[in-house]
Amino acid sequence: MEAIANITRLETPVHPYYPLEIQIVGYVANQLSVPHLLVSFAAGCAAIFSITTVIVTKIRPHLPRSELLTVLWFVLSGCIHLFFEGYYVLNHTRMGGQMDLFGQLWKEYSLSDSRYLTSDPFVLCMETITAAAWGPLSFLVAALITTESPLRYPLQAIVSLGQLYGDVLYYTTSMFDHFHKGLSYCRPESYYFWGYYFFMNTFWIIIPLVLLYNSVTATARAFKIAEQTAGKTRQKKLN
Amino acid sequence: MEAIANITRLETPVHPYYPLEIQIVGYVANQLSVPHLLVSFAAGCAAIFSITTVIVTKIRPHLPRSELLTVLWFVLSGCIHLFFEGYYVLNHTRMGGQMDLFGQLWKEYSLSDSRYLTSDPFVLCMETITAAAWGPLSFLVAALITTESPLRYPLQAIVSLGQLYGDVLYYTTSMFDHFHKGLSYCRPESYYFWGYYFFMNTFWIIIPLVLLYNSVTATARAFKIAEQTAGKTRQKKLN
Repeated sequence: MEAIANITRLETPVHPYYPLEIQIVGYVANQLSVPHLLVSFAAGCAAIFSITTVIVTKIRPHLPRSELLTVLWFVLSGCIHLFFEGYYVLNHTRMGGQMDLFGQLWKEYSLSDSRYLTSDPFVLCMETITAAAWGPLSFLVAALITTESPLRYPLQAIVSLGQLYGDVLYYTTSMFDHFHKGLSYCRPESYYFWGYYFFMNTFWIIIPLVLLYNSVTATARAFKIAEQTAGKTRQKKLN
Repeated sequence: MEAIANITRLETPVHPYYPLEIQIVGYVANQLSVPHLLVSFAAGCAAIFSITTVIVTKIRPHLPRSELLTVLWFVLSGCIHLFFEGYYVLNHTRMGGQMDLFGQLWKEYSLSDSRYLTSDPFVLCMETITAAAWGPLSFLVAALITTESPLRYPLQAIVSLGQLYGDVLYYTTSMFDHFHKGLSYCRPESYYFWGYYFFMNTFWIIIPLVLLYNSVTATARAFKIAEQTAGKTRQKKLN
């Protein structure tokens, strides 16, 4: 009887995700409450910020505040890309039944975008690149800022553009399906659309834009100085 | 009778694209031959190269050969992104029936990737960003190289990474559908896969990778020189 019940659950899943007709393999409802999940996520972020601040302040006690904030951003991004998004990439075929903290967090988030529960090709490929490339590179940029490396700004530009482009495609692909095909992956309650889908991803639009601009202007300044120095050297040689 | 024939053709399209069951709105077979299409495309590229070489050589007669080649690359990219890919973006809902040169070129290429004939959300969004952002920015980078602007390398990195990321996602999304879902958008003849899908897109993997590396190393060098110059200035002030 239990076997039959399981088969029935697999074949006719009842789930709260939109569009309602999608098949979610082995769906099991979350057990942790929404406040529990949100507080766990916030606590994780706070722990990452605290540990990073302690380490960076020890290595570089006089690092300007804006640089420390940029390091915190890249370490947080690195952790989310590598561990949280990496978790999705490794488990994309069985996300509906995942019951650990990350699994339940993803299932809560997916109320705003069910593509995470159906191995959507674009979402999976974008997340794979994010986890495998922007994840490790985010940690590298944090280290390059802390050590004042000349590689910092070009790498900061690469990671920021990677995050920005991925996020713009993430928004536009689902917006296209919504407006052109009348297909919504988000539950109708506006909390999910604005609170999860819009708000949580908007950080990876605004902050990378600022850091990309910051990188371009700093690089142009460095080239100007390098060009002036080369000019002076040529002048000296001519004299 | 003609009206009925047209309706029948719209409702039950017979087309050479894979997977065979896809619906292509208003499909009309190409009239131009494949050699005609390929020679037209090659002639277009040759014209772009010739005109650009004449203009750039007039503005900067002593521009190093490698720089001229980079300018040619960005002008060609700009033209393809803005005009050819822009054409697809504007006409994505009626690509099957387009009979002008660009329309027939796209229909020939689509034998290797039918997503261009079905308004695939990822392909459309990626192409929109490519046409709207990387297109104009490619022309800007060509101009920045010609005028030796300090903004050249950061902008070269942005456009190259944009092209690279878009192309990697382009390959991986269809490879995922092929291997994970057994869904192929390419005709079975290997000419289409290797000649069109693989070969034509591989340029936007290899060349952007080289130009991105080139940009990162040039930028790191500029920051080193700028840092040394700042160090000397500090030293002078202290003395």
